[in-house]
Amino acid sequence: MTAVKHQKWWGWGQEGVSFNYQGKPKFPGFVLDKLGVDITQGAVNVAAFSSLDVPGSQLNDALRAALVAAVGEENVILDDEMRVVHAYGKGVRDLVRVRRGDLGRVPDVVVYPRSEDDVVAVMAAVVEADGVLIPFGGGSNIVAALEAVPGEPRQVVSVDMGQMNKVLQIDEEAGLARIQAGVLGPDMEEQLNARGWTMGHFPDSFVWSTLGGWIATRSTGMQSDKYGDIADITRGLRMVMPDQVLNLRPLPSYSSGPSVREMVLGSEGRLGIITEATVNVHRMPEVREIQAYFFPDYHAGLDAAAEVSESDAAVMMMRVSDAAETEFSMANGKKSSAVGKLMSKAIQQVMLRKGWDLSEICLSFVGYEGTATHVRYEKSLVNKIIKQHGGLAVGKGPGTLYDQKKFDIPYIRDFLLDRGIPADVSETATPWSMTKQIHDETVKRAYQAMEETGQQGFIMCHLSHSYHSGACQYFTFAIADSTATSLESYDHVKRAVQQSFMDHAGTVSHHHGVGEEHSPWLEQDISPAGVHIQRKLFEGIDPHSNLNPGKIIHEGKPGISTNSVDG
Amino acid sequence: MTAVKHQKWWGWGQEGVSFNYQGKPKFPGFVLDKLGVDITQGAVNVAAFSSLDVPGSQLNDALRAALVAAVGEENVILDDEMRVVHAYGKGVRDLVRVRRGDLGRVPDVVVYPRSEDDVVAVMAAVVEADGVLIPFGGGSNIVAALEAVPGEPRQVVSVDMGQMNKVLQIDEEAGLARIQAGVLGPDMEEQLNARGWTMGHFPDSFVWSTLGGWIATRSTGMQSDKYGDIADITRGLRMVMPDQVLNLRPLPSYSSGPSVREMVLGSEGRLGIITEATVNVHRMPEVREIQAYFFPDYHAGLDAAAEVSESDAAVMMMRVSDAAETEFSMANGKKSSAVGKLMSKAIQQVMLRKGWDLSEICLSFVGYEGTATHVRYEKSLVNKIIKQHGGLAVGKGPGTLYDQKKFDIPYIRDFLLDRGIPADVSETATPWSMTKQIHDETVKRAYQAMEETGQQGFIMCHLSHSYHSGACQYFTFAIADSTATSLESYDHVKRAVQQSFMDHAGTVSHHHGVGEEHSPWLEQDISPAGVHIQRKLFEGIDPHSNLNPGKIIHEGKPGISTNSVDG
Repeated sequence: MTAVKHQKWWGWGQEGVSFNYQGKPKFPGFVLDKLGVDITQGAVNVAAFSSLDVPGSQLNDALRAALVAAVGEENVILDDEMRVVHAYGKGVRDLVRVRRGDLGRVPDVVVYPRSEDDVVAVMAAVVEADGVLIPFGGGSNIVAALEAVPGEPRQVVSVDMGQMNKVLQIDEEAGLARIQAGVLGPDMEEQLNARGWTMGHFPDSFVWSTLGGWIATRSTGMQSDKYGDIADITRGLRMVMPDQVLNLRPLPSYSSGPSVREMVLGSEGRLGIITEATVNVHRMPEVREIQAYFFPDYHAGLDAAAEVSESDAAVMMMRVSDAAETEFSMANGKKSSAVGKLMSKAIQQVMLRKGWDLSEICLSFVGYEGTATHVRYEKSLVNKIIKQHGGLAVGKGPGTLYDQKKFDIPYIRDFLLDRGIPADVSETATPWSMTKQIHDETVKRAYQAMEETGQQGFIMCHLSHSYHSGACQYFTFAIADSTATSLESYDHVKRAVQQSFMDHAGTVSHHHGVGEEHSPWLEQDISPAGVHIQRKLFEGIDPHSNLNPGKIIHEGKPGISTNSVDG
Repeated sequence: MTAVKHQKWWGWGQEGVSFNYQGKPKFPGFVLDKLGVDITQGAVNVAAFSSLDVPGSQLNDALRAALVAAVGEENVILDDEMRVVHAYGKGVRDLVRVRRGDLGRVPDVVVYPRSEDDVVAVMAAVVEADGVLIPFGGGSNIVAALEAVPGEPRQVVSVDMGQMNKVLQIDEEAGLARIQAGVLGPDMEEQLNARGWTMGHFPDSFVWSTLGGWIATRSTGMQSDKYGDIADITRGLRMVMPDQVLNLRPLPSYSSGPSVREMVLGSEGRLGIITEATVNVHRMPEVREIQAYFFPDYHAGLDAAAEVSESDAAVMMMRVSDAAETEFSMANGKKSSAVGKLMSKAIQQVMLRKGWDLSEICLSFVGYEGTATHVRYEKSLVNKIIKQHGGLAVGKGPGTLYDQKKFDIPYIRDFLLDRGIPADVSETATPWSMTKQIHDETVKRAYQAMEETGQQGFIMCHLSHSYHSGACQYFTFAIADSTATSLESYDHVKRAVQQSFMDHAGTVSHHHGVGEEHSPWLEQDISPAGVHIQRKLFEGIDPHSNLNPGKIIHEGKPGISTNSVDG
């Protein structure tokens, strides 16, 4: 298991990699303006791991022996730091708690199966011992799907899938690849690319998330407009359940009763442990191009995106930032970079001549893939639509940069947290007819909630994924609270954002899942009868609640709730 | 309820409409050659309804009173013919049985709710009485999903949704329409077309199937390559369950746990009664064109279809008939029609010059929709691919005709059955890497099975729907058996076809559902663990089996089974 990569126990990514604002002269001023914090002053140092009070493992000898028999001694890990790494995901609530030494119900052991047979043996051992199984992929979950229920009296086993990381087979005729569930994004794409293929699934968490994790949370990648979300991409799969192994063969479509495939998708460990999937893969495109545009305001950008999604162009992605996020992007661009140079005097002159309010402008990226002819054809269709909505094409440079840096954003969160600013994301999807209203109302309610906490805060948003009937909007928000109650402030804003989603025809989550974090809003989203259906499914498959209990449907009191201030 | 249209009790469609071979001089010879039956000789007359021995209704006074209170006296129907119309779907096994007077467990009453409130009241009354509820749409089901379990001792209530047939609302900004579940295809499209919209869902059964039925069976229309199948199209829905009403709001995508939407899709009445759905609708396309092509053989056509599906063209449909179906189409085309004229001497000369074996040629239709520019662009991409695979474009005429006649095929089945030839369809989907093998093997096994029955038979096939990773192939087969054991012959062939699907990586059904007919193969398709998951779901929601029991998972002995000859 030494080969398995892990993130820092206290933050995003590997030790030694972090965000800095070198070459970004506008960044400190932006944060000072929006959040009242001077980031040029010293940051809080994260405490040494040795200062934490890690609860001892409660693993008993019988289960330990059974796990050793299942996966081998070297893959049964009781080490404190590894147990803490597996105690939480990487939501800001997780980061705040772990840094405070509030470690929750740390798993008693981490096991690293090498094969599906290993997973079967682990499942049998834990269910036999009436323990709790929590599957673990890249550890980047932000909805509290990886933590045990507080005070869980039973033995808690974190099942790290990191050794099951191979592309097993490519069916070149069908464009299907059979892949083990524990593979991290980059490792998977490297194996596929080497043979000329790509899966086309690039969520923000790509570097620190796995195929199994994507399936278990119904993940969506940045290029889903072309490649589909993970539900579209996943055709077949295998999942280890108590006493049996589910095997769904790879089928392009089917009519075989309620879709078992779609029950496993989004199941967050409550039905079993996904061991492999057979997924759609594509030949690497001949041309790939990301074009930048400006819109006079966000509503114009939303209108254009709706029209592009309905046009004959089938773009690879279309992203539109609202004015706040556009301002952030400008401040976060290196002065010498294409983004830094975007707002040149010349461009500003063009905008002013058009009568634009420079504080309202919105940056947009549209991605194209295919043959050179096809990219040219699509671009001409899209450029026409964007022009009709007052948009302005500003070239390829910023898009290329976006493409290179797209996975780096989570490092900023640690940087801000070091400076007393908890920040995180919430995203939703609605019909097109609600996109403007849900954006504007959510921003308004978030600022109201920030004001209620007495702390300065900031929220920004972009349209991230388009569909025939609607779109996903992705909000990032921060609150400048370095006090001991910072999580209460954060939760107060988070609650306002989630409730706004519910009140404006949005889903509780577009691609991060429910976990424990979003569980309080689930009945408002899919109606009490929908939750009833999910509950009956979980109870039927897992009558003794051995499989990641408390996720999606939380029977006790979740960490965050709709109606309490102290969470 | 007088306004609700019904099909003949003994066959497809309305009384007075039937197939004839006038103007098709090749048709009788084709049937004589393939099936050894001279169709120009007199057909069997279907017996008068009055000659049937219809079992009396077992409805008791208490439930009758409760149903009258629920939907009004005029919507509670005990009439024998209406009860028989609701006793079966329209599979060939249904038609053979009903014509023989083998009526099975005829429902005790048919009710016609006018609103969701009515459905709630009916559900409450029937569950309270421990009766059985069978939802009924257009009555065109071919997998025995509409019949009560033989010998069902409880009261059986058929819930005909035909009065709930309105398009309630169109969200023009989102391209979403809220529609009642009981609407028949043509009535729905008429209401949508009147406002400039279409749903784009056109299954073979279109004229005699409903929105609710499509959802309950995971239906796919002929134009799904562009519009998606019903699972893609259905964004929100409402379903009446015991004690509650499920309400899923229309969302373009979501990550809210296992997909409840995808559990209702394909549920065939086992979770409740679908009352309405909010579906994707599209503006009527500017141009619509169906182009005909010939391929030298079926494998060349399959290769071309795979390449088209992966190309930058996004066609509305691509259909490729195998050589047998091509021969059938030629024989079924009117002499004076575009299809009749397809095999002109001139075209035959071209084919012979190319070295084609005329007995192997395959007819293909490709549909294009969009702006004139877009159709031109896609056509140029597709024409190039088809040419590379040896295909030959033969103009628009036959495609236009196909478009006009596409819903008439089921009438031929009644015509053949009148002449002692049971015929029906089975379809499957596989990865592209298996399309040739599953076609060739299924045809071979079907002929073996026919030989084993000692009867002459015929099977033909077309590729009907394409996806990135694979395609659906749709088989039609007939067996010339007019004896009392004709169903045994038919079942023997049907079993061979279904088992071939299982043995060659296919699904038990691509878009007709499971019902009772395909239930015996379900474990082979989705694995025993998959069936276990579905069973637990059904048991959890419907502990007393009031909701269309015996469908999808059949606990007793289904009408057809994998391993017995007498079914």
